[in-house]
Amino acid sequence: MTSADLYLRKGADRRLRGGHLWIYSNEIDSKRSSLGSFAPGEPVCVRSAEGKLLGSAYMEPQSLICARMFAPGEQRSLDFSLILQRLKVALAGRDAFFDQPFYRLVYGDSDLLPGIVIDRFGPYLVVQLNNAGVERYRQPLLDALVDLLKPEGVLLRGDSRSRRESGLAVDVEVVLGDVPERVPVEENGVKFLAPVHSGQKTGWFYDHRMARARLQPWVQDKSVLDVYSYIGGWGIQAGVFGASSVCCLDSSAAALEGVMVNAGLNGLADQVSIRQGSAPETMAQMRTESLSFDVVILDPPAFIQRRKDLKKGLAAYRRINELGLRLLKPGGLLVSASCSMHLSRADLFTAMQQAAVRADCQLRVVEQGAQGPDHPIHPAIPETEYLKAVFARRVG
Amino acid sequence: MTSADLYLRKGADRRLRGGHLWIYSNEIDSKRSSLGSFAPGEPVCVRSAEGKLLGSAYMEPQSLICARMFAPGEQRSLDFSLILQRLKVALAGRDAFFDQPFYRLVYGDSDLLPGIVIDRFGPYLVVQLNNAGVERYRQPLLDALVDLLKPEGVLLRGDSRSRRESGLAVDVEVVLGDVPERVPVEENGVKFLAPVHSGQKTGWFYDHRMARARLQPWVQDKSVLDVYSYIGGWGIQAGVFGASSVCCLDSSAAALEGVMVNAGLNGLADQVSIRQGSAPETMAQMRTESLSFDVVILDPPAFIQRRKDLKKGLAAYRRINELGLRLLKPGGLLVSASCSMHLSRADLFTAMQQAAVRADCQLRVVEQGAQGPDHPIHPAIPETEYLKAVFARRVG
Repeated sequence: MTSADLYLRKGADRRLRGGHLWIYSNEIDSKRSSLGSFAPGEPVCVRSAEGKLLGSAYMEPQSLICARMFAPGEQRSLDFSLILQRLKVALAGRDAFFDQPFYRLVYGDSDLLPGIVIDRFGPYLVVQLNNAGVERYRQPLLDALVDLLKPEGVLLRGDSRSRRESGLAVDVEVVLGDVPERVPVEENGVKFLAPVHSGQKTGWFYDHRMARARLQPWVQDKSVLDVYSYIGGWGIQAGVFGASSVCCLDSSAAALEGVMVNAGLNGLADQVSIRQGSAPETMAQMRTESLSFDVVILDPPAFIQRRKDLKKGLAAYRRINELGLRLLKPGGLLVSASCSMHLSRADLFTAMQQAAVRADCQLRVVEQGAQGPDHPIHPAIPETEYLKAVFARRVG
Repeated sequence: MTSADLYLRKGADRRLRGGHLWIYSNEIDSKRSSLGSFAPGEPVCVRSAEGKLLGSAYMEPQSLICARMFAPGEQRSLDFSLILQRLKVALAGRDAFFDQPFYRLVYGDSDLLPGIVIDRFGPYLVVQLNNAGVERYRQPLLDALVDLLKPEGVLLRGDSRSRRESGLAVDVEVVLGDVPERVPVEENGVKFLAPVHSGQKTGWFYDHRMARARLQPWVQDKSVLDVYSYIGGWGIQAGVFGASSVCCLDSSAAALEGVMVNAGLNGLADQVSIRQGSAPETMAQMRTESLSFDVVILDPPAFIQRRKDLKKGLAAYRRINELGLRLLKPGGLLVSASCSMHLSRADLFTAMQQAAVRADCQLRVVEQGAQGPDHPIHPAIPETEYLKAVFARRVG
């Protein structure tokens, strides 16, 4: 199979030579390779202005990132054979660390499978194809997954934000076998049921696993508030780790129903309570009830979706941290997370410190969490790093 | 006791209001409060241009950071009573996490005891007084330590780099009781003897404890190279965690003697070997011997002491990472640390990625370590954060 050539402008190969995989539309030599001539997903050989092969990519001609490299330095097709090879490498990486089949199996660019996310829940796989171009590779991907893992069911979650924003078809579809509404997950020895069809993202957030494990020494006999709890990923683990009480706060009734299911699974029905409402409003309300906690966990959705929203987003992080701190006892622990790629760890520190000044208390950072080994960061692609969890003690 | 007033220029109170504790000499209103009129260590009331009390500090009139606040927002003396109160808060912070008395008890500004570092080794304390001003508070500090902890011995390590650079007296002195040449330490369940009189810094590096604990899942049955090993903090722990072999490399014969003592303490004499020499030269030499390892740990001294050395330092980090990668087997783990405050985590990622490009391999970051809860980061003082440990798998 021969691929068309995609020529870059002079000097535009620098980032790629450093290991990055993205090609922006303004980096193309449009005289030699006009974007309009490519179809979404079309494979190309990426070439420097001097004609040197930089690697193989698929096209996203309608996007700012107009091509995504899947085989740097090589002329390859993204076919069954290459996808299977990529999956094997990804699986070996997870097997090196995890002894149970619950993890993100494929994390896009970091696994040299751009646009593809796959979460593994034992015998079930939940797949996201997050752009128009990668749609083209759906069948060989499914074939390779069947070949390697023989899953009992594969669910395609075609309702990601990036798909919606690109105007792609939004659907959730079982494309192989059967996938129950809720599938079992085990994380840090704690059992959950994850609503993979209807829950947020793929139904579960594997990314905070290592940070959640680090809760263990901090929650014994403590009262814990888990804000933006979803189905209790943090809160139920805190309960199993010995918290005396856990309150999960979320705006979604379905999520809170999940919390109680998961509390029951772990014998925590008596320790766990739920509160439904918007996080800021409910935290403010709890303050008027003179409630306070030993541990407050804030794991909000991404407040910053685009770089231009940084300032507004910073204010939103500051605000929820201030509200959380006003519910935190002196000597207590604030766990403040952010999954906004555009918010740096230093920015999050700043938001927390500003919140502390406003809440008239002192914080000290005692522990930090990052995305786990199943969300490997590609050190040449800063965009593959997004998750922060900062543990801070209120010392005064 | 009345303190003199230290007046700031208009607007120079902004950083302090945000929670920082340092006052720079160019922020002083020298008409109202001339630096020349203060003695080192002299207590002052820090006031804004408008005369508002910002807090209490001690002077370092000969330094760029000419005053260090120990009581923000308050008019206090740094006497026995306040020091004891600070020590109690610091101790409570450590007791909240550690169940053994082995930790950094006082971490300067973060514990509102600027210039003071105290490491606790069971019944022994190692104290650093890292500037001229804080010398003045030596006796009440020792009195408070005796009152709170009744130590069997207190060693003053007056040979820190900051003391040398300030031209202060350099001496190492037992100022209370007795302190053996080597004192027992326990970290992550592993036993060590630390040469507190003559070893690096205070004799032991508590700061990497949490990162070292994270080695556990990665080293089982693996061959490990510990570069800049000092007395084996990483290597011996890797051995206890199940590594099949550990090679410790350091330029210091005394450090390597410590490695073998610590190997023996943990029943690892057969698994642990040592190599003496400069790290870059020895790594290059090992390459010519076709040696390779499953895990390579690089924990160098700070290559960047001043911001102006950033570029040169980055090159040094890149170089040792490249040398380390050339000794790392495919699928293996590189643990790359930096204690340079001026090197950001992102800079370290960059150095590692550049090293990977030069060594023609691919890295993925799978775990990250930061300074532990006994080195709390003050979120208003970025200078209190310095330690990074990045775990990256070689995927190709």
